[in-house]
Amino acid sequence: MKILITGFEPFGGESINPAYEAVKRLPEKINGAEIVKGCIPTVFRKSITELEKYIEKEKPHIVICVGQAGGRTHISIERVAINIDDARIKDNEDNQPVDEAIFEDGENAYFSSLPIKAMVQRMKDYGVPASVSNTAGTFVCNHIMYGLLYLIDKKYPHMKGGFIHVPYLPEQVLEKNNMASMSLEDVVKGLTLAVEAVLKI
Amino acid sequence: MKILITGFEPFGGESINPAYEAVKRLPEKINGAEIVKGCIPTVFRKSITELEKYIEKEKPHIVICVGQAGGRTHISIERVAINIDDARIKDNEDNQPVDEAIFEDGENAYFSSLPIKAMVQRMKDYGVPASVSNTAGTFVCNHIMYGLLYLIDKKYPHMKGGFIHVPYLPEQVLEKNNMASMSLEDVVKGLTLAVEAVLKI
Amino acid sequence: MKILITGFEPFGGESINPAYEAVKRLPEKINGAEIVKGCIPTVFRKSITELEKYIEKEKPHIVICVGQAGGRTHISIERVAINIDDARIKDNEDNQPVDEAIFEDGENAYFSSLPIKAMVQRMKDYGVPASVSNTAGTFVCNHIMYGLLYLIDKKYPHMKGGFIHVPYLPEQVLEKNNMASMSLEDVVKGLTLAVEAVLKI
Amino acid sequence: MKILITGFEPFGGESINPAYEAVKRLPEKINGAEIVKGCIPTVFRKSITELEKYIEKEKPHIVICVGQAGGRTHISIERVAINIDDARIKDNEDNQPVDEAIFEDGENAYFSSLPIKAMVQRMKDYGVPASVSNTAGTFVCNHIMYGLLYLIDKKYPHMKGGFIHVPYLPEQVLEKNNMASMSLEDVVKGLTLAVEAVLKI
Repeated sequence: MKILITGFEPFGGESINPAYEAVKRLPEKINGAEIVKGCIPTVFRKSITELEKYIEKEKPHIVICVGQAGGRTHISIERVAINIDDARIKDNEDNQPVDEAIFEDGENAYFSSLPIKAMVQRMKDYGVPASVSNTAGTFVCNHIMYGLLYLIDKKYPHMKGGFIHVPYLPEQVLEKNNMASMSLEDVVKGLTLAVEAVLKI
Repeated sequence: MKILITGFEPFGGESINPAYEAVKRLPEKINGAEIVKGCIPTVFRKSITELEKYIEKEKPHIVICVGQAGGRTHISIERVAINIDDARIKDNEDNQPVDEAIFEDGENAYFSSLPIKAMVQRMKDYGVPASVSNTAGTFVCNHIMYGLLYLIDKKYPHMKGGFIHVPYLPEQVLEKNNMASMSLEDVVKGLTLAVEAVLKI
Repeated sequence: MKILITGFEPFGGESINPAYEAVKRLPEKINGAEIVKGCIPTVFRKSITELEKYIEKEKPHIVICVGQAGGRTHISIERVAINIDDARIKDNEDNQPVDEAIFEDGENAYFSSLPIKAMVQRMKDYGVPASVSNTAGTFVCNHIMYGLLYLIDKKYPHMKGGFIHVPYLPEQVLEKNNMASMSLEDVVKGLTLAVEAVLKI
Repeated sequence: MKILITGFEPFGGESINPAYEAVKRLPEKINGAEIVKGCIPTVFRKSITELEKYIEKEKPHIVICVGQAGGRTHISIERVAINIDDARIKDNEDNQPVDEAIFEDGENAYFSSLPIKAMVQRMKDYGVPASVSNTAGTFVCNHIMYGLLYLIDKKYPHMKGGFIHVPYLPEQVLEKNNMASMSLEDVVKGLTLAVEAVLKI
């Protein structure tokens, strides 16, 4: 069993991305499954292209993309990705699509094919704040989640995939009063627990 | 140099109090200063009586009381305590004073005699989210802070003292969506850094 | 031109529903279009059945369903409804579906067929806080929005439809500290402006 | 009976100040009492000087200062003002005092001499979200409240006074997602009800 887990490059003025910081620190094996890690550019289109390169190279059974959701208090397992790009800020290559479909021939939305409730429950069982989220937004996080599930639907039907949003790290909120964060240790622990829940299914 | 640091018993339906959980884990010495720890009942009046017993027994140079501020995202160093008890819930012995002065012969308020800005800065320098707070509320946290500063003013003028509020721990927000928390490790680290800043003055 | 606008019965322990309170107060005509009003039970399935009865009776050109989103600060125009019921509380007839598809033969999601950006802009132009929302949740609000767009897709392709979430009214937050609200006058004004934007397309 | 009610000039990049917008719209008489209105510059020191000019000219029995608390959801009746200026932004004349006492010979804090609980209750009785606040911050709002209560303590012991914070107006949050507001009508209604409660004592 091989699991590809990706994080993102920093964006939106942040100097780090908690998603990739956490992904980097995951162990090489979780409950016997091989963990392969990738770093995806925070860029529309190119993020999906890079993701597919990883998929082609690694042939994973499961793909989990991880991104930052600044302001959230809990690790959130995304339920659904929608077929739209609508960016309030520019991505890392100055693209700012507004109300554009991601794939003209894609479904309006794709549901995560991961066991989202079991992932949340396992994190909570071990003390990591977690919840299901019903929106991944309309920026690159939703874009890559949609792209992943589109690829699964069209080309890799044997694969499973989904998306996890993680809070800011403490170091990101030092100058942001009243902004929640989660320690890197808890984010890493939470992602590991989430993978364990995926492996149980 | 001896520093007394106190936490509280749990209250308000919580089974733990992050303040005392963190205080328990502080080292015995910080930068050469002896750290003495106390646990204070979450009860009006009795909390001050117990605090004074610790002071009489330990003869500390500095007293720092620590309490829980559920919902806050940062460790907050309190600036001021006000001469009023006004409880929206009952304390642990069913007292619920409304708009009562804490000490009739006390000042309207006392300012912390700790270096609050330096404490915040040192925590931020080492990556722990921290800020100054201008209200400790009107429940037992403000009560003990006021009581401490009243005792310093009236009986122990050589002593210095103040109050620190800490966020919920992650395990306390598992069933509280959108409620911020901070890891126990970061709370302990933050309190240690705060003590270091106090010792520098 | 005829527009059907529906509100909901109160739910979740509230004695009023701001959606229906506002819908009731809309004028009979907006820019020449006839406004027909409906009240929908906050019940899975039955809400869609009742909505279709209104549609059959009134033969509207446009249907806008309105619901309460307690805690939101702005009127929010929903972008998308997803094919799932996942209730954290019971509806008004004690149904609590968990992770059930709304219509087995429906799309994973339907996008609103209303001009959501123009509706937001017109409200803002006239001073009413408004924004686009990317999730209507997984309770009866998403259910009715999905049901409406499913009906449009399958049976009424000439019709257009969508969903608007409105904040609590001030009277609903009197005992809820730190909970946002919007005046009934502003909600009515906002809905009227949103209808005007729909009519301009 | 004469009541002086003051608002502030806009500050912090805002083009209006909801406090003065509301004060301007108060009636000339409330329950028989004469209402005199003032507009205070958002400037340390000068605000107190201008307030005293109004007091000298009008000889009011009661003074209520009103200010903006952006982000709050309820009208908040301030309980206490503290003897410190600590500005995170510059005032309207570029002053930015840090940790300075307002009056060296003043108390550490002064409590409002208005019936704060009765004011809150009356607003709630008539449907306006209101609550007691335990901090007016450390900017010009706390400064003027402290200055007012200092003046009452030192020179005008027959007078009563206090401070009310009001939320943003809807027009101020159009571009601020997730920021609460209150309609001008409700702010005016709330202030009127608060004055009525003051007159009942």
